[in-house]
Amino acid sequence: MAGFSIGVDLGGTNLRVAAVTPRGERLDHISQPTRLHAGPYAVLDDMVAAIHTILDRRRNAELSGIGVGSPGPLELPAGILHHPPNLPGFDGLRLREELESRLGGCVSIDSDANLAAYGECLLGAGRAFGAESLCMLTLGTGVGSGMVLEGRIWHGMQGAAGESGHGPLDPNGPPCPCGARGCLEMYASATAIVRRAGQLGVGSAEGNGAAVPLTASCVAQLANSGDARALQVFDEMGRALGLSLSNLINALDLPLYVVGGGAAAAWPLFAPRMFATVREMSYVYRLSMPDDPAVYQPGRTHITPAQLSDAGLLGAALLPLHAHDGARA
Amino acid sequence: MAGFSIGVDLGGTNLRVAAVTPRGERLDHISQPTRLHAGPYAVLDDMVAAIHTILDRRRNAELSGIGVGSPGPLELPAGILHHPPNLPGFDGLRLREELESRLGGCVSIDSDANLAAYGECLLGAGRAFGAESLCMLTLGTGVGSGMVLEGRIWHGMQGAAGESGHGPLDPNGPPCPCGARGCLEMYASATAIVRRAGQLGVGSAEGNGAAVPLTASCVAQLANSGDARALQVFDEMGRALGLSLSNLINALDLPLYVVGGGAAAAWPLFAPRMFATVREMSYVYRLSMPDDPAVYQPGRTHITPAQLSDAGLLGAALLPLHAHDGARA
Repeated sequence: MAGFSIGVDLGGTNLRVAAVTPRGERLDHISQPTRLHAGPYAVLDDMVAAIHTILDRRRNAELSGIGVGSPGPLELPAGILHHPPNLPGFDGLRLREELESRLGGCVSIDSDANLAAYGECLLGAGRAFGAESLCMLTLGTGVGSGMVLEGRIWHGMQGAAGESGHGPLDPNGPPCPCGARGCLEMYASATAIVRRAGQLGVGSAEGNGAAVPLTASCVAQLANSGDARALQVFDEMGRALGLSLSNLINALDLPLYVVGGGAAAAWPLFAPRMFATVREMSYVYRLSMPDDPAVYQPGRTHITPAQLSDAGLLGAALLPLHAHDGARA
Repeated sequence: MAGFSIGVDLGGTNLRVAAVTPRGERLDHISQPTRLHAGPYAVLDDMVAAIHTILDRRRNAELSGIGVGSPGPLELPAGILHHPPNLPGFDGLRLREELESRLGGCVSIDSDANLAAYGECLLGAGRAFGAESLCMLTLGTGVGSGMVLEGRIWHGMQGAAGESGHGPLDPNGPPCPCGARGCLEMYASATAIVRRAGQLGVGSAEGNGAAVPLTASCVAQLANSGDARALQVFDEMGRALGLSLSNLINALDLPLYVVGGGAAAAWPLFAPRMFATVREMSYVYRLSMPDDPAVYQPGRTHITPAQLSDAGLLGAALLPLHAHDGARA
C-alpha cells in the first residue's frame, strides 16, 4: 500500500480522523461526535483510539505523519489551548504533549482556520488558481481566518495571526465577545446573520421581532424567496466582507482570497455587494482589474468560495509532510 | 577602503545619493533638488552624475551594488513607474532599464515606502527590538506603508502590497484620491491634518475657517499650546491610526509596527489615542499584553516611532546586498 498521513479535525461538534495520500486522496475516515461533556481526556482517548483503528487497518502502508487541527486560541508551537470558546473545559490543555505521549511520536498541530487555508491552498482554490499565497475567511459560528504566504502558513509572532474576523469595521458597531466593537465577525458569521435577521424582524409579519428563532440557512431561504429584510441582512454581510477584504488586499496584495465555512453557502446572496465594495474600496484590487471598468472580468486578484468541504481535515493530514515554523513536523 | 554600496532616494523634492557600508554607516552623501520641471531624463542624468561622483571619490573601494528607492506606484520587478502622484511627468518611465543602460550594470529598485520599512528593520527599530518582521506606516503628504516579513520585503503579487494607507476606515468618510472613501490617508497624513484643522477652524478666532492656510507642524504647535480644536485633530488622527493598526495586528500578529514620516513628529499628540484604540480594538494586541490591564507595560507587540531619519536611503543602499523577490539584486 502507498504511504499516507493522518489528519485529525477536532471540532466542537465532531471529531474526524482520516488517512490521506500526499496528493490529498482520502483512504479511510472515522467521524464521531466530540464528547465535550465527558471532558478533554475522554476526547483525547477517542482521538487516539480512532487513530489506532485507522493505523491497524493500514498496517502495511508507511505512515508519514499525524497532523491535528484544533479550534483556537492555540499557542504555537507548544500546542496549548487557551480558553477555546468552542471547546469549553479545554482551557490549558497541552494538546501536543498529551497526544505525543499517548502516540509515542511527533504530532503536527495547528489551528483549524490555518489548516483550512492550507488545505484550500494545496488542494482546493489555490491549486485551481495556481496561487501559493492566499487568505481564507471561514464564516461559521464566528469568523475564522488563516493565511498561507508562499506555501507556508503565516503564524505571526505568537501564533495569533489570522484574526481578521476581529478586525474592526465600525468602532461604533455591536460589541463583540473579543472585547472590541463592530468586528467583521459581528456582520459575517452565522450568528451575526441570525442576530441581524432578528433585529430586522425577518420572518415576522410585523417586522418587529421574529416569533421563532431562525437559523442562518432559514434567513437565506427567505432571502432567496425575495424577502426584502432577509436580503438586507446579506447585503450588509457582503458590505462587511468587502470592507475587510479591501483592507487585506490593500495591505497584502495576495492573488487569492477564499471565503468558506457554513455561512459561505449564501455566496450568491452576499457576493454581489461584497465585490461592489471591494471594487469601490480597494485601490490594489482595481489595479489588478482590466482597464475597462464597464466590462466586469475577473482580475488577477481572485475572491472565490472555498472548493473543499473538508479543507481543514485535508490540511491537517498534509501538515506533517512539510516543514513549518510553529508547527513542528 | 572597505566595501560599500550606493543608495539612491528619488524624492519628489530632493534627490539623495549616499555611499553606505554593509553595517549602515554613511561614507559619502550628495543631496540636490529633484529637477521635476526639467523632466525625467534630466533627473536620471542628475542621478547618474551623482552616482559617478561618489564612485570617483571611492575609486579604491569595492562597490557591492546600487539600490534605488522611488515613489510609487512602481511595477516590480520591472521597475516601471505608473502615474506616480509625487513625480508628475514620470508616468511610464522604465526606471530600472534606464538606469541599468546608463550605468552598465544591475540596479536594485523598490518603492520608497518599502525601503523605509527595510531600513528601519535592519538598522533602526527592528534592530532595537530584535524584530525581523515589521510593518511601517510613513505619514507624509500621503500615507505610505511597507512590510518586511522574516527579513524580506513583502511585495505581494503585483508589487502593490503595503497600501495600508488606503485601507478603508469609514466607508462614509471623506473621498480619497485613490477612489475610495475614508482611507487612513484621509485622517493621518500631513495633508489630512491641515484639511481637518481648516474644517474645525483651528487658528481662527471664530472657529469657522482659518484666515491663513496652516501647515501640519503649525497645527501641532497650536495643539502643544493647548488649543482644543488642534488637539481634536490629533486625537482623531490617533483614532484612525489605532483602527488601521488593529486591523494589521489582528491579521498579521507582527512583533513591530513603526510610524514614521514628517507627521510622525506629532507622536506625543496622537499616540495616546492611538494606543487606547489599539488596546480597545485589537484582540491580538491584548493577547500580547501582561495580564494585569491596570498596569500599562509595553507588551510583545511594539508600536514605536521610526528611529532613523533616512531609513529609505539606507534601505536602498542595503537592498542590493540581499536577494529579494521582485527586486533583482
